[in-house]
Amino acid sequence: MTKYHNILKVKRLGINTRQEHIIFMREDCGVCKSEGFSALSRVLVTNGSKSLVATINSVRDGLLKDGEASLSESAWHELKVKEGDFISLSYFPPLESLSKVRAKLFGNPLSKSDFQSIILDIYRGRFSNIQLAAFVSGCVGERLSLNEIIFLTEAMVEAGERIKWYKEIVVDKHCVGGLPGNRVTPIVVSIVAAAGLTIPKTSSRAITSPSGTADTMEVMTAINLSLQKMKAVVEKTNGCIVWGGAVNLSPADDLIIRVERALDIDSEGQMIASVLSKKMAAGSTHVVLDIPVGTTAKVRSQKAAQEMKRKLEAVGHAIGLKVKILITDGSQPIGRGIGPALEAKDVLAVIRNSADAPNDLLEKSLLIAGAILELAKCCEPGRGIEEAKKILLSGKAEEKFFSICEAQGGFREPPQAKFTHEVYSEYEGIVKTIDNRRLSMIAKLAGAPHDAAAGIELFVKIGTKISKKEPLYRIHAESKGVLEYALSYERSQKDIFRIEE
Amino acid sequence: MTKYHNILKVKRLGINTRQEHIIFMREDCGVCKSEGFSALSRVLVTNGSKSLVATINSVRDGLLKDGEASLSESAWHELKVKEGDFISLSYFPPLESLSKVRAKLFGNPLSKSDFQSIILDIYRGRFSNIQLAAFVSGCVGERLSLNEIIFLTEAMVEAGERIKWYKEIVVDKHCVGGLPGNRVTPIVVSIVAAAGLTIPKTSSRAITSPSGTADTMEVMTAINLSLQKMKAVVEKTNGCIVWGGAVNLSPADDLIIRVERALDIDSEGQMIASVLSKKMAAGSTHVVLDIPVGTTAKVRSQKAAQEMKRKLEAVGHAIGLKVKILITDGSQPIGRGIGPALEAKDVLAVIRNSADAPNDLLEKSLLIAGAILELAKCCEPGRGIEEAKKILLSGKAEEKFFSICEAQGGFREPPQAKFTHEVYSEYEGIVKTIDNRRLSMIAKLAGAPHDAAAGIELFVKIGTKISKKEPLYRIHAESKGVLEYALSYERSQKDIFRIEE
Repeated sequence: MTKYHNILKVKRLGINTRQEHIIFMREDCGVCKSEGFSALSRVLVTNGSKSLVATINSVRDGLLKDGEASLSESAWHELKVKEGDFISLSYFPPLESLSKVRAKLFGNPLSKSDFQSIILDIYRGRFSNIQLAAFVSGCVGERLSLNEIIFLTEAMVEAGERIKWYKEIVVDKHCVGGLPGNRVTPIVVSIVAAAGLTIPKTSSRAITSPSGTADTMEVMTAINLSLQKMKAVVEKTNGCIVWGGAVNLSPADDLIIRVERALDIDSEGQMIASVLSKKMAAGSTHVVLDIPVGTTAKVRSQKAAQEMKRKLEAVGHAIGLKVKILITDGSQPIGRGIGPALEAKDVLAVIRNSADAPNDLLEKSLLIAGAILELAKCCEPGRGIEEAKKILLSGKAEEKFFSICEAQGGFREPPQAKFTHEVYSEYEGIVKTIDNRRLSMIAKLAGAPHDAAAGIELFVKIGTKISKKEPLYRIHAESKGVLEYALSYERSQKDIFRIEE
Repeated sequence: MTKYHNILKVKRLGINTRQEHIIFMREDCGVCKSEGFSALSRVLVTNGSKSLVATINSVRDGLLKDGEASLSESAWHELKVKEGDFISLSYFPPLESLSKVRAKLFGNPLSKSDFQSIILDIYRGRFSNIQLAAFVSGCVGERLSLNEIIFLTEAMVEAGERIKWYKEIVVDKHCVGGLPGNRVTPIVVSIVAAAGLTIPKTSSRAITSPSGTADTMEVMTAINLSLQKMKAVVEKTNGCIVWGGAVNLSPADDLIIRVERALDIDSEGQMIASVLSKKMAAGSTHVVLDIPVGTTAKVRSQKAAQEMKRKLEAVGHAIGLKVKILITDGSQPIGRGIGPALEAKDVLAVIRNSADAPNDLLEKSLLIAGAILELAKCCEPGRGIEEAKKILLSGKAEEKFFSICEAQGGFREPPQAKFTHEVYSEYEGIVKTIDNRRLSMIAKLAGAPHDAAAGIELFVKIGTKISKKEPLYRIHAESKGVLEYALSYERSQKDIFRIEE
């Protein structure tokens, strides 16, 4: 279709619209009026070889002169424009792929090429927030068949960059999440890399939780590494722990996750596609996946875990990944900290073989690392945990962790929050259950993960004997406002800890 | 839950974010940092007794001083702030109703109170675009049961204002749409009001079509009437034809329609709720509904029409409306014009009893007006059309139409577009089919409804005998750019008109 270009000069207003591409134009702008752009809601914006589709927000005079336009920060960076550059605007036909999204919403199955066209358009920044939300909504729950999950996964792998390591075995691990404090990754990577395996770990930021591995690592070292920089780290140390979004391995996925966060939705199909596409894109061959099960974990029953296991295995097989799936105990948080910095402190205690290291985090890390060692045939079957323990106790994992941090940009100790407040038990007895979800909510209300030092420091586990007025946990926060907010929620809740005699 | 207020001074930047409420704040704003607002993505903004939830967009210094914030135009108007006013910010707990939206996406049925809480939050401006899109997506196609459509309709009626007319019978009409040029409403209102019935007609703007009745009326008179003004018009003339959005009868519905437009989705359940809630809110008691059926109309088969009829009758009955449903021919456009001004010209030709008035528009108008007269027992059964024709031919409908326009703010003749281009037949023969959808697309690409004079002027109907190189239709546009754009689409399409010997 013919395109009619028009030129506007860009002025930076520095408006951060949370990743949605917006172009700000004057309502009475001559170029817009003469070409009828004001009749449109979205327009194709081009700078040299780069282009994207932006939603038009009109501004009154004052902010912009006639002939000027501005771009949201995400569009500004994506188009790589500089102050005073000229951009061209063109008409943009209705997105073909949006008809596929509509078909999905109306209950029709999508083909591989349907998913390819959707993911490609998302990757190119052509979906608005509203359109992304419709796609996410169409893929929720049981709405994606196993075949569709495979198609989506393949489409996501194809849309991003893909790393070649020129090694026979490249290992990886992932936890499907939902368990606060479950921060085994930095420990596992250190053990496995110390064993000589290649483990180029890319992690996510939190979607609906108080911290993701990327958030936790960020308090100790740089995680926004380019693909090139990440490769250098892995070549030097066998491993890395970086943010997946920065290396652009599954860029469409990052946009989808942002919308899932706004809706507080964790969609199984999207999750499987997200996880396995990232593994493929990272060049992995052997992957250990952890599914914690508990009434307040993301996966609530053995049945659901088995179902998820079946799908993960099938999708992994379809795309050529060797996967080993562990179903683990998700009845309570792992470690003591919940929130980026507090979890980092737990990680460091285990890595450093400190006497007060949380034992559950230690054991879970050895379990996962052991499974990887076995899957990669680095040890005999059944000897993985033992081998992992040996490496950790020897100090080689510690050494490896700090050399990875050093290679990523230098290590720093986790920060301490400005304000803390202890919450006491109202009962005497034994802790019977701990509500992962509501503890996570308190940590989030206290500012995690945005405020890295915010979160919860947990003093009890299931089975702990506690007296009245003994502290259950301590809330950490960076301002009195958020601390009070978290506390007012805490006070409104009953039985986050069930304590019985 | 306790709220922690903080005060910022508002500065108007005049940014129109297409109805989404946005608050612009400096990243380093003292108030935001001390209270941790920057950890949030959305915040409750209050001015006196008015409040709304806005999404936070951060701006770099320059645009705003420390202690200042700005609001998108929609939020500015909603909160009724003035330059330099002080607004307070507070934490806003996660929307309870969003968990209902998630439940719907996961396939669970919703209760009446679920719909009430969702619609109330939408009405209060608490849903972001992403959240609105998820709700719309969850209600698409067969996903709403008949009971749910009833609940949704009731919730929408309750959320808006509701007019009392203190009359036993208040009539109304609606067409479920999808047929270009089908602009019978102004004619029907004029006839029916001339017959002495009360018909306070509120109409929509186009959702996915080149024009809605509100768009067409707007080229002839004011349609943005307040509820009070609308009442005055009806008291004086028995009728009115105003924009439903302005009288705030179903405000949640207008927000939902904006999102449907961005997704190019027409959802049956939402449509039924939207239509019938507006009728109830407008105080109507007797309503005639028109379902045009055609392979390229919105409703494509008699079966689908019967299904829709069944649902409309059931929902109408449940909420206490007397409805009469007509299933009509939707195989081709009605009248000659497609687009606001071109349709207005057709309407005026019929109203004025012009010799060249399009006969199909005339007959369809008499059919609908006749059905209303019969439903309201203004004439004997079977005599409605005859009675309607008498009123039209007498000139009383014309007189009524102009007195309504006068009361709404004065009549003006429809404008003429700057550019036109005729499209010629490539074949000789008889017109067998006309593609409503692709003709609508051309009219939209030519700028309709945003450019009121833009659209299509149709010269043939099904059955017309045409020679090679005779004109099929004329495109009207306000700029060469859009005209070329519409033409390039036209050239890429085959058989919008099927012509056979």
